[in-house]
Amino acid sequence: MNKPELTIYKIGGGIIDDAAELTRFLELLAATSGPKILVHGGGKGASTMMRELGLTPQLINGRRVTDAATLDIVTMFYAGKTNKQVVAELQKLGTNALGLSGADGNVIRGIKRPVKDIDYGFVGDLTPASINKNLLQQLLTSGLLPVLCPIIHDGQGQLLNTNADTIASAVAVALAEFYAVTLHYCFEKNGVLRDVANDQSVIREINSETYIELKQQGIIADGMLPKLENAFAALNQGVSRVIIGHALHINSDLRTVLCLN
Amino acid sequence: MNKPELTIYKIGGGIIDDAAELTRFLELLAATSGPKILVHGGGKGASTMMRELGLTPQLINGRRVTDAATLDIVTMFYAGKTNKQVVAELQKLGTNALGLSGADGNVIRGIKRPVKDIDYGFVGDLTPASINKNLLQQLLTSGLLPVLCPIIHDGQGQLLNTNADTIASAVAVALAEFYAVTLHYCFEKNGVLRDVANDQSVIREINSETYIELKQQGIIADGMLPKLENAFAALNQGVSRVIIGHALHINSDLRTVLCLN
Repeated sequence: MNKPELTIYKIGGGIIDDAAELTRFLELLAATSGPKILVHGGGKGASTMMRELGLTPQLINGRRVTDAATLDIVTMFYAGKTNKQVVAELQKLGTNALGLSGADGNVIRGIKRPVKDIDYGFVGDLTPASINKNLLQQLLTSGLLPVLCPIIHDGQGQLLNTNADTIASAVAVALAEFYAVTLHYCFEKNGVLRDVANDQSVIREINSETYIELKQQGIIADGMLPKLENAFAALNQGVSRVIIGHALHINSDLRTVLCLN
Repeated sequence: MNKPELTIYKIGGGIIDDAAELTRFLELLAATSGPKILVHGGGKGASTMMRELGLTPQLINGRRVTDAATLDIVTMFYAGKTNKQVVAELQKLGTNALGLSGADGNVIRGIKRPVKDIDYGFVGDLTPASINKNLLQQLLTSGLLPVLCPIIHDGQGQLLNTNADTIASAVAVALAEFYAVTLHYCFEKNGVLRDVANDQSVIREINSETYIELKQQGIIADGMLPKLENAFAALNQGVSRVIIGHALHINSDLRTVLCLN
């Protein structure tokens, strides 16, 4: 029997910081059919508020170092303001969204990142086993659109700050047991570009073989490399396809589709 | 057929501002059996943060005037920080809590309070018809404990700040269709007191008749009067009983039980 389709959309800080673009994206999302999950990242609001409160945001390799005061602020922003605004906008559009942190319904339980060279503080790591796939399936079956923010918990009463890409990928892999999952990463580019200076030079399809060629040719490099490594890791764990494209093109063909073959 | 029992607990700002007492309350709550819902209010954190950000909290007759900046802060505090901390603590205690604003799953849809003498800003009013009783029943049937914060929505993309007592009462009335509902108001006193100076002078039971007597005798007056008016309004709309008592006595007999007869 064929599995039903499920699309998991991930949006990042760039679109969250642009209210007009976020609204346009949510309108496009509400117009898509079929079960879906939205995972959202942070945005600059938390850092702005921290500075207003006299705190200093600290990033190492692009990852936020999360002390107790920072965790409070990001929990308020991600699980409170951003998550509830997105949910309220989707409700306006007739889409029955339901916002969740990982603590809600124990939907994502992770572990505090072990301290090696760097102490990231209250940052969570997770695995596909972290995902409460049965609850997500139940919510989807009820016609709800789960909206996940990047705050999870450790099961011991501690909230943890987690990367939204990581959450999207782990949720996609976990739900591949029940669904033919498309994992759709929305960002500010039109897709994987053959020429980074030309936003129209989208490589429409990449499979395991062409991926190796593109790496060898140096066309895929730098920041795109870890993104695609994660995408193929998800494909190798049962996700049907990964799409990388602009948030305002989710219904367009101008995007990169990644699959195993 | 007898309806199954459901208890709706409401906790206010006093307990939320006292982390140790909140933890003790949640331990007691987790030890109770049967389906339940927790409704929580705000606390002083939002006002403290507003002052740190150079904003001035404004209250009229004990109700917060909610402009756009205030709505952002209370959404962050109530739906973000407080709600998720409570949920994470309950998860630690083995209770599968799931936090909700009114926007989530369209669980509480209200209307912005019409401006008469006072413009309260983004404050929501609601009726029993505002409550998505089917979703709450579904979550309860799944073994989840819904944790409701006092932020709702208007269905048009606008979040609204709402009184937690009002939410608890409307949810109780709406769910009385499916359950024998006990509405349990937790506060800092042991119950309705015969002598306000003596916290042991709890009136253990009040019904419609004794309520009128106690009012005539002037024993119920001032701040307790609107609380009991609301309680009897809920009883008259199908709620089985209302309990008023201390948050740390939810399993004790030292409390006031209100019922129609």
